Amino acid sequence: MSTADLALPVDVPSTALFTDRYEFTMLQAALKSGAAHRRSVFEAFTRRLPEGRRYGVVAGTGRVLDAVENFRFDAPLLEFLERERVVDAPTLKWLADYRFTGDIWGYPEGEVYFPGSPILRVEGSFAEAVLLETVVLSILNHDSAIAAAASRMAVAAGGRPLMEMGARRTHELAAVAAARAAYVGGFRSSSNLAAGFRYGLPTIGTSAHAFTLLHDTERDAFTAQVQSLGRSTTLLVDTYDLTEAVRTAVEVAGPELGAVRIDSGDLLLLAHRVRQQLDDLGARNTQIVVTSDLDEYAIASLAAAPVDAYGVGTSLVTGSGQPTCSMVYKLVARASVPDDAGAPLTAVAKKALGGKTSVGGRKWAARRLDADGVAEAEVVGSGEIPADLVDRQLLVPLVRGGEVVGREPLDAARTRHIAARAGLPLSATQLSRGEPVLPTEVR
Amino acid sequence: MSTADLALPVDVPSTALFTDRYEFTMLQAALKSGAAHRRSVFEAFTRRLPEGRRYGVVAGTGRVLDAVENFRFDAPLLEFLERERVVDAPTLKWLADYRFTGDIWGYPEGEVYFPGSPILRVEGSFAEAVLLETVVLSILNHDSAIAAAASRMAVAAGGRPLMEMGARRTHELAAVAAARAAYVGGFRSSSNLAAGFRYGLPTIGTSAHAFTLLHDTERDAFTAQVQSLGRSTTLLVDTYDLTEAVRTAVEVAGPELGAVRIDSGDLLLLAHRVRQQLDDLGARNTQIVVTSDLDEYAIASLAAAPVDAYGVGTSLVTGSGQPTCSMVYKLVARASVPDDAGAPLTAVAKKALGGKTSVGGRKWAARRLDADGVAEAEVVGSGEIPADLVDRQLLVPLVRGGEVVGREPLDAARTRHIAARAGLPLSATQLSRGEPVLPTEVR
Repeated sequence: MSTADLALPVDVPSTALFTDRYEFTMLQAALKSGAAHRRSVFEAFTRRLPEGRRYGVVAGTGRVLDAVENFRFDAPLLEFLERERVVDAPTLKWLADYRFTGDIWGYPEGEVYFPGSPILRVEGSFAEAVLLETVVLSILNHDSAIAAAASRMAVAAGGRPLMEMGARRTHELAAVAAARAAYVGGFRSSSNLAAGFRYGLPTIGTSAHAFTLLHDTERDAFTAQVQSLGRSTTLLVDTYDLTEAVRTAVEVAGPELGAVRIDSGDLLLLAHRVRQQLDDLGARNTQIVVTSDLDEYAIASLAAAPVDAYGVGTSLVTGSGQPTCSMVYKLVARASVPDDAGAPLTAVAKKALGGKTSVGGRKWAARRLDADGVAEAEVVGSGEIPADLVDRQLLVPLVRGGEVVGREPLDAARTRHIAARAGLPLSATQLSRGEPVLPTEVR
Repeated sequence: MSTADLALPVDVPSTALFTDRYEFTMLQAALKSGAAHRRSVFEAFTRRLPEGRRYGVVAGTGRVLDAVENFRFDAPLLEFLERERVVDAPTLKWLADYRFTGDIWGYPEGEVYFPGSPILRVEGSFAEAVLLETVVLSILNHDSAIAAAASRMAVAAGGRPLMEMGARRTHELAAVAAARAAYVGGFRSSSNLAAGFRYGLPTIGTSAHAFTLLHDTERDAFTAQVQSLGRSTTLLVDTYDLTEAVRTAVEVAGPELGAVRIDSGDLLLLAHRVRQQLDDLGARNTQIVVTSDLDEYAIASLAAAPVDAYGVGTSLVTGSGQPTCSMVYKLVARASVPDDAGAPLTAVAKKALGGKTSVGGRKWAARRLDADGVAEAEVVGSGEIPADLVDRQLLVPLVRGGEVVGREPLDAARTRHIAARAGLPLSATQLSRGEPVLPTEVR
């Protein structure tokens, strides 16, 4: 048994308990009534974007595929369900053989979405599809929230690189997923070694204030760092006096010094001052990295400052004020007879009460373009997709007959996101609060 | 290899990559300079509470102990660090034998804290202690944020039970930790089966709207549920028409019906109406459970409503607007010579710049009481603790010489939190925004 398999969600062989108890009790009752075997369609969607946001970003799709593939019950899980009397004996027997055998379609990872977009569509028997609700939503709601924040920060940063540094401000495994989602949204690298290990993300980092404080003098610390990590390293210059630190840094490393990092203070002011000082010292190629509670607004405010890279932590991993999306997983259609894959589907939906309305029916989705090729509407409907929208369909096959068919490299999602965002009206990338940049038309 | 060991952070054998890359590069540079072997003291603390909060709640301590115990490097991790050139060969060799051998003191789990409270104190060589920064902070920052929200909700709920139902709105493993932290903060149960499996939390849940929509009629669904789960089950009554659903529910289950759940609409109004209807139908013992984007304010607003239990999701797992704490892990003291456990410690701290100040020195902490036995100040200092505060010390030993000595049942933390909160001035439990209810005095 390798640590590598265990410490991280690398080859998680079961995601079957990332589940709310009611999914199992519904399963038991439906197995007894027979309705469990009715063909069913569930869709994940959101009724609204987070307050003021203009678009959402689909992220986590690849992780959903892993989760579905690994959703199995072996002895310890079944023993737990039995011991806790979560379900009865016939249900336990059914679970022992569980394997998702249905189909999943969805927006590909990195795509943008709007209220009502059918982000994921899960089709199979009620029994097999209902169990996936929680794990599907956990992944999509978390990862999409991070990717949306990352996308806004990437817009604010222009072409300058963004480094994810938020592990310490979120759950240790959420941090790994957050680094992944940030990459989809446009970040270039992460401080998180687990994310490097699991997803191959480029990792970065050199030193903290503790390293300077550990040594008797700042000069000792810089010397130790340069001797070990080379002149191209990044020295942290705000432990004591910034101006003195920059001078010492260049004395120790020479003008070949890779970068200095500023982690506190008025970054706009300090970046200009440090740039001037570095130039005066002949360290014209030494870069300036800033970190310190940055969010998309702070990044934007530094657009005209001589900053070469941004490190972002808290605001990224908490979704910049929106730490979750409000995606739900709803039964939208089901057959009226069991065990018949060809049985006609009946659209179903909760009736309006308190605003939690849904649109029933198994849906397609397309993005309609205007004459200039810019997106003008998200169009969602059930039944046959209109001919003029066939080429603009958004749902792609992810799982067919239980087999994952939609796996792709993470870079594909990252590239797709850049293209999808670029296809939106220009106002999509305004940082200010606003309405969704595309209306959703329901056919 | 058991699924049980893998799917969940049950026996995570290595937490060593839940680490920011700079901890390894600092290690390498300090090993080379020799400073790595200086005895060092790191402290986790926060400079401020989340905006408007009156107290913080320590949670995650038990998970920190697991993480420290399991912080090891085996072949796949070392190969990764080598392949990615994170560190050099001597450092890899040092890591291969890594095991934390130092001491950890901390506030016990469930205790309350304030700005400047030394929530965790890690003592050892710089090398061994610096590597724990990220994983310690990830756990404490996440779990304490959830526990603080849970504690406020528990106050708002009075004696009524709170059920955690937020798994779908956060990362799938963060959800497990969130359920645990919610329990520490006062929740009674969780919908999350992984939390039941891992931490033995009571789990709850019966059915969703999908179950009603799956069946041809609401009566069919209720009948199926009652036949399978018994009359004491909870029926969800807001899929179609609430009044009709309640009538059908009592017809199907009889007055022995356990509970009805309302998941949308004006809960205050509906709870009164449903209570009246249930009473009129003779179902006087049938309880009313409400769920639907509740937070501590919504819970408080239902205090006078005939509600028997609250289910809380999104706002709990996102810390009710404060999804993370701002705890940092700072070097506060270190020796000036290596490899000498008895060497005198020098207090160190980053100099003021941009507000990120710290107080150097290895600290004690105590909570001073007034004449009535009510807490009146958090007192923090270094050196000898004053005699009058010896009995009120807050730090307890958690790890001694690398051995975990502070493990305890989760119920101990839950009970401790109730007592700690009760010892604060009355204004601690006001939901309105305010200042920390205790001042922190630095000696």
